[in-house]
Amino acid sequence: MEDLKAASPSRLREIIRKGEFTGPTAGLAAGYAQANLVILPEELAFEFMLFIHRNPKPCPVLDVTDPGDPEPKLTAPGADIRQDLPKYRIYERGKLTAEVTNILKYWREDFVAFLIGCSFTFEAAFLKAGIPVRHIEEKKNVPMFITNIQCKEAGRFKGPMVVSMRPIPGRLIPKAVEITSRYKAVHGSPIHIGHPQSIGIKDINSPDFGDAVTIRKGELPVFWACGVTPQAVAMETKPSIMITHSPGHMFITDIKNEQLAEYY
Amino acid sequence: MEDLKAASPSRLREIIRKGEFTGPTAGLAAGYAQANLVILPEELAFEFMLFIHRNPKPCPVLDVTDPGDPEPKLTAPGADIRQDLPKYRIYERGKLTAEVTNILKYWREDFVAFLIGCSFTFEAAFLKAGIPVRHIEEKKNVPMFITNIQCKEAGRFKGPMVVSMRPIPGRLIPKAVEITSRYKAVHGSPIHIGHPQSIGIKDINSPDFGDAVTIRKGELPVFWACGVTPQAVAMETKPSIMITHSPGHMFITDIKNEQLAEYY
Repeated sequence: MEDLKAASPSRLREIIRKGEFTGPTAGLAAGYAQANLVILPEELAFEFMLFIHRNPKPCPVLDVTDPGDPEPKLTAPGADIRQDLPKYRIYERGKLTAEVTNILKYWREDFVAFLIGCSFTFEAAFLKAGIPVRHIEEKKNVPMFITNIQCKEAGRFKGPMVVSMRPIPGRLIPKAVEITSRYKAVHGSPIHIGHPQSIGIKDINSPDFGDAVTIRKGELPVFWACGVTPQAVAMETKPSIMITHSPGHMFITDIKNEQLAEYY
Repeated sequence: MEDLKAASPSRLREIIRKGEFTGPTAGLAAGYAQANLVILPEELAFEFMLFIHRNPKPCPVLDVTDPGDPEPKLTAPGADIRQDLPKYRIYERGKLTAEVTNILKYWREDFVAFLIGCSFTFEAAFLKAGIPVRHIEEKKNVPMFITNIQCKEAGRFKGPMVVSMRPIPGRLIPKAVEITSRYKAVHGSPIHIGHPQSIGIKDINSPDFGDAVTIRKGELPVFWACGVTPQAVAMETKPSIMITHSPGHMFITDIKNEQLAEYY
């Protein structure tokens, strides 16, 4: 059995393209950035581009393809966005209608693919720096919450910001802020520290997505803008068709995590 | 006579809107960021947005308006892009056809305005840090050169990167790199230091735009990506209509220079 954690991004994408791996990608091709995927028809692309430009923290875009072109040239030359992710979700008018392992038969000449940075990148940096990542320790999904912070609107796209939460000991919070402020391309510094209520979160133990995690004594909840935001906001417009990765089944880029620290 | 250097951005825009000031804006509303303007029909807007996303150093976009909306909501709420710049240039199919002090009669419901960061912001930081800015000392325009570095293409937009050059003493170059690397929103760190020939510049004393400046003993030419690039590239596509600011007659934003150090 080949060690997928040590695989190069192009090798891993090749294995996925052949249909030999269809699972979640956390920890695979270690050291390389993974990305969220949103595919929309060109008719919505400019407005979505405006939305992500106006909301860089929840929507740190790494790459946008030319209409009809399945190759993400900036982040993974030679890759094919239609078959290099292990699992995709098809949404029609806002409803999930299929989950598939490639989207060749759905592809259209007016499709534009948006690759959006993912917090796996800064979590790897946290672990190196000795900052605990509770949901990894507890083998759970990161807890995510819908806040009362409204994103800046753009055309048909509007809605609240979704955040992820990581409990961090008070003495390590400054380090966590320093590290993530270097990673603008994967959500950047936190958007809030310490008071869930003040951003509209009623119960820190009941996340809207993902799993609750333990907050230990001396720790505070720290909140980062989350890549679920652009998907949720796009869904609200009920586009005739929209394709995303399945949760946890990300696109593997050729960009090293460390490169993203200076991506902009 | 009102001191325009000390004026607030909104006051200065008001004076300009009334037609009471039509000159260059360098040094006015001191401390606030000024921006380059490119207006294109919506038909080209998505491709231009792709181009600027793929080329963040020459095209550090600060704000993009909704189609038909003359208000740059992110950078200057309440402003009117059609009349708040002192001078505009109208290009039809790539040819300059008029220079005007407002564009009310040209405005269309499908126009999208792009505001692009300007190096005035980091030059202010240089002066504070004791780094010489030769073209200011010599009361000239910054020298600009067309390089052999090709921008990343997007649809109809492609072309070489234009750079600006500032001669800096070797011992101060590290400081100049540190400062500009904080200002991602106004071109960021240099794209080259020291060897004009290796980026296709034949004669450092014959700039393609602006004026030649003195390079003193112990100084090296340092090159930054230049905001002329997106205008030049857009012009090459010969759009039916394109509107820009007149050189030096910039848009005054409500954003403080220092805020741009953390804009992304």
